Amino acid sequence: MKIGFLGLGQMGHGMAGNLLKAGHEVTVYNRSPGKADALVTMGAVAAASPLEACHGDAVVTMLADDKALEALAFGAQGIIASLAKSALHISCSTISVEMSERLMLAHAKAGQRFVAAPVFGRPDAAAAGKLFVAAAGAARDIEDCAPVFEAIAQRVFVLGEHPPSANLVKLSGNFLIASVIESLGEAMALVGKGGVDLHAYLDLLTSTLFSAPVYKTYGGLIADGKFEPAGFAAPLGQKDIRLTLAAAEHLQVPMPIANLLRDRFLTLLANGGERLDWSAIGKLAAKDAGQH
Amino acid sequence: MKIGFLGLGQMGHGMAGNLLKAGHEVTVYNRSPGKADALVTMGAVAAASPLEACHGDAVVTMLADDKALEALAFGAQGIIASLAKSALHISCSTISVEMSERLMLAHAKAGQRFVAAPVFGRPDAAAAGKLFVAAAGAARDIEDCAPVFEAIAQRVFVLGEHPPSANLVKLSGNFLIASVIESLGEAMALVGKGGVDLHAYLDLLTSTLFSAPVYKTYGGLIADGKFEPAGFAAPLGQKDIRLTLAAAEHLQVPMPIANLLRDRFLTLLANGGERLDWSAIGKLAAKDAGQH
Amino acid sequence: MKIGFLGLGQMGHGMAGNLLKAGHEVTVYNRSPGKADALVTMGAVAAASPLEACHGDAVVTMLADDKALEALAFGAQGIIASLAKSALHISCSTISVEMSERLMLAHAKAGQRFVAAPVFGRPDAAAAGKLFVAAAGAARDIEDCAPVFEAIAQRVFVLGEHPPSANLVKLSGNFLIASVIESLGEAMALVGKGGVDLHAYLDLLTSTLFSAPVYKTYGGLIADGKFEPAGFAAPLGQKDIRLTLAAAEHLQVPMPIANLLRDRFLTLLANGGERLDWSAIGKLAAKDAGQH
Amino acid sequence: MKIGFLGLGQMGHGMAGNLLKAGHEVTVYNRSPGKADALVTMGAVAAASPLEACHGDAVVTMLADDKALEALAFGAQGIIASLAKSALHISCSTISVEMSERLMLAHAKAGQRFVAAPVFGRPDAAAAGKLFVAAAGAARDIEDCAPVFEAIAQRVFVLGEHPPSANLVKLSGNFLIASVIESLGEAMALVGKGGVDLHAYLDLLTSTLFSAPVYKTYGGLIADGKFEPAGFAAPLGQKDIRLTLAAAEHLQVPMPIANLLRDRFLTLLANGGERLDWSAIGKLAAKDAGQH
Repeated sequence: MKIGFLGLGQMGHGMAGNLLKAGHEVTVYNRSPGKADALVTMGAVAAASPLEACHGDAVVTMLADDKALEALAFGAQGIIASLAKSALHISCSTISVEMSERLMLAHAKAGQRFVAAPVFGRPDAAAAGKLFVAAAGAARDIEDCAPVFEAIAQRVFVLGEHPPSANLVKLSGNFLIASVIESLGEAMALVGKGGVDLHAYLDLLTSTLFSAPVYKTYGGLIADGKFEPAGFAAPLGQKDIRLTLAAAEHLQVPMPIANLLRDRFLTLLANGGERLDWSAIGKLAAKDAGQH
Repeated sequence: MKIGFLGLGQMGHGMAGNLLKAGHEVTVYNRSPGKADALVTMGAVAAASPLEACHGDAVVTMLADDKALEALAFGAQGIIASLAKSALHISCSTISVEMSERLMLAHAKAGQRFVAAPVFGRPDAAAAGKLFVAAAGAARDIEDCAPVFEAIAQRVFVLGEHPPSANLVKLSGNFLIASVIESLGEAMALVGKGGVDLHAYLDLLTSTLFSAPVYKTYGGLIADGKFEPAGFAAPLGQKDIRLTLAAAEHLQVPMPIANLLRDRFLTLLANGGERLDWSAIGKLAAKDAGQH
Repeated sequence: MKIGFLGLGQMGHGMAGNLLKAGHEVTVYNRSPGKADALVTMGAVAAASPLEACHGDAVVTMLADDKALEALAFGAQGIIASLAKSALHISCSTISVEMSERLMLAHAKAGQRFVAAPVFGRPDAAAAGKLFVAAAGAARDIEDCAPVFEAIAQRVFVLGEHPPSANLVKLSGNFLIASVIESLGEAMALVGKGGVDLHAYLDLLTSTLFSAPVYKTYGGLIADGKFEPAGFAAPLGQKDIRLTLAAAEHLQVPMPIANLLRDRFLTLLANGGERLDWSAIGKLAAKDAGQH
Repeated sequence: MKIGFLGLGQMGHGMAGNLLKAGHEVTVYNRSPGKADALVTMGAVAAASPLEACHGDAVVTMLADDKALEALAFGAQGIIASLAKSALHISCSTISVEMSERLMLAHAKAGQRFVAAPVFGRPDAAAAGKLFVAAAGAARDIEDCAPVFEAIAQRVFVLGEHPPSANLVKLSGNFLIASVIESLGEAMALVGKGGVDLHAYLDLLTSTLFSAPVYKTYGGLIADGKFEPAGFAAPLGQKDIRLTLAAAEHLQVPMPIANLLRDRFLTLLANGGERLDWSAIGKLAAKDAGQH
């Protein structure tokens, strides 16, 4: 396939590289230059503008947030203005449900196709082509994404024909991870103040009922109190909880744990935690308990 | 070893059976009669009173709650009055931290030894001798429990020398499970109202970041809305959250998710949910969202 | 003064009438026509467009929300494009802090003056000229508003030179009222389920520590379970809590009661409460307690 | 009447004095001696034991908590063992609903009469005979309390025939005051961080919708950040919220604001706030917002 790829951050770089390895013809674009160099040596064409990356069968976007995607998608030189009729926009970014709806409508109006396909996994999984994709869109459109998904993912989960559903699911996933962080933070504040060794405690949890990687990863960070360098920075966590709550408000779904997470992130950021990993909210229960 | 075993419910029955299979000499007691019959055919001696089960090296208790244990432990015919000096009381029940402290002090005063050893696992794991034990007590006392633990557990986690620590850890484990139920309940209310199929959603979660059995088990129950028959009834869940909050209050540790869980259980019980599985609190977010 | 008045709802109608009675020359505008008739018989001039109401010394706006004000303020025919240099925009609507900031900047750029002056009081107080005004803006600008404030208010509270501060204070006031509703709702669910007569209870509260009118008004509505017709409809309450939370997020201030109120309004709206008075959230605690 | 009075703290001292002034024959008792001296000069008889104060028509108790009352009420020398048949126990302390139920049953069994009559008001109101009484008990019993109530109170509110109802109401009143503190704390954190002067803000609130004394008193303490000396110390506030939550749990009533208050008190106490006034919880929102 002839594919444009927009957004060459840590995640996007690995994904674009795997598209090249799979034999696709890839034109890459990134707002700040220099990010494309390594991909060019692998055979990518570097575009000087988003427009130049929109001449193929599909364009894949992997951007930081709504604002970054909006800047590339709309406007006279944007994706919607540039993409051919029937071409595909495969949106992999973690964005708001509202933005996904706007894109869906704009592409439909322009006679183009839109698939929301946010991904689960860290940069190493992106580099290894081992992401998980949560995809939603018209059945035929998702079929046509197969060559792209095969190159970047170990598995694709199809979540219906309404693209924003996939974005909702992605946000809910980050909400669930943050819930794990908060609940571990409370439990560890409790047993820690009660005199139990936190690493022994974590060993028990992760060897028994809580074997999922999120418990090991985040439990370890909380037990060590080690939140720098940030794997996923607190402001990004806050953003995802804000988007979750915005979607929940739109659907009229009360989510009390999401509210609590919102407050935890605000407290963290208001007290100088901007550069910390989002799991630093897992120390706030202990701090409230007077354990500094 | 010569062991008394008090409490022959679903869990205790399996545990006592495994002690017999391991070759121990076991005297069993249960308040309501008839529960001992099958064990007697396996070689157990049935005691007519708690006192009769307290003549050996150790007594193991596996009772429903503080009240049941208090009734057997204290008083003129109770465990503390009956056990020999230096004999062991191995307390496997899920009880309050406060009760564990009372027992610890009473046994110390009587020259006896006390190990708190609450277990993780369902009745099938108890029957198979595959429980996990969270143990705390003097190092030598825990060593002396080894023959008992070997018969009932696949692994023992030692959590320090202060017996109540093990009870605190056990309670915190149930708090963490209930937190999973609540967070899944909120996430599923959100994506469900947004039109996503709950089983597809759960498949995605449990195939990726949330592979732990608790997500599969409780996510499935919530997706199916199937809360009868109860594996672990709502009033027991409420009790464990109450004991968690009592311990947290004593240690001055604020636990906002535990508060939320408390309210969820009260709401469930106040609206006729007494016979339901505790995971039925996972439908309350959807109910608040108008999804009946 | 020569004054334009935009927004002739229940509140605006009374306010404009008092400006006329005080002898001001008033040009009135309302999007839906017919609202101006009674004021015209009192001496007002009816404008066919917002622009026609912007030829005087000041324009007063009293609109339902951000969207309504935005529609009149911005654009080629809007207030900012139409008002003379140095003329005053006195914004009395309950709007977001963000919108107040946008207006402040736009008026400054256009060489005009902007005072935020949201009001406290119900339609009867507006009709009687007995509102309370929370005003913020440059000291000289607020001085120049005096003839307007004298006509509509019994007292003016000056809250500094930064106009959005007054909007923040207005939102916080509605948050405090909603907090009273929720706390009364919980207390009445408790004592009501405990068998206490709610009217006797309310008599005690309002005769002793809680003599403020909000306790009488809202306590009575909750005790009677009478939420129709709405004095202030639930969606408006939800909006104000949303704006409070948005301002709090911007300032990084966690507000747990505001989160709870947000959830209460979502629950109410998701279960058919759209037409009810906002105090209907005060029955949700009783509902959770199984008291229907 | 011939009255025994037990508990001569700040409140009880004033109440007993007013009973003397009203011409009653009063025998007083306090656990720590010396407290009775001033009353003896006014005509009181000092009892050396609770028993000696139980020979009259009625005994009034005004003690710090459940534990203090339990110590005097039960046991061989206690009130229940000592009081004549048909004599009255008028319990004015702020105690748990559960303790009130125990007393009600014990007195009924002993053929004695029990009226719960907790009071609202500070020590100065007690000294002036201007308390408010929340009374519950059999109609005839409450009638027979009239001479006592007339001496100590400006008004009596009768809350039914079930004595524990009055204790429930008293606890709910303290819950409502603490709710005012918390909601003011959040609102002041918001507007304060937004640059508004807190005293000007409070002036606006208390001059308009929130004229009740609790807003003036506690709003002033929060604005000034002045929490010493404590008028009502934080541990007493925590106790009353704990008793409220215990009653709510018993009645299966979820009270989310009470949960939040519980956490606020734990946070305050865990961080060295033991000697502060309970309104110090009103600074925690600002602290979370990074305003120290």
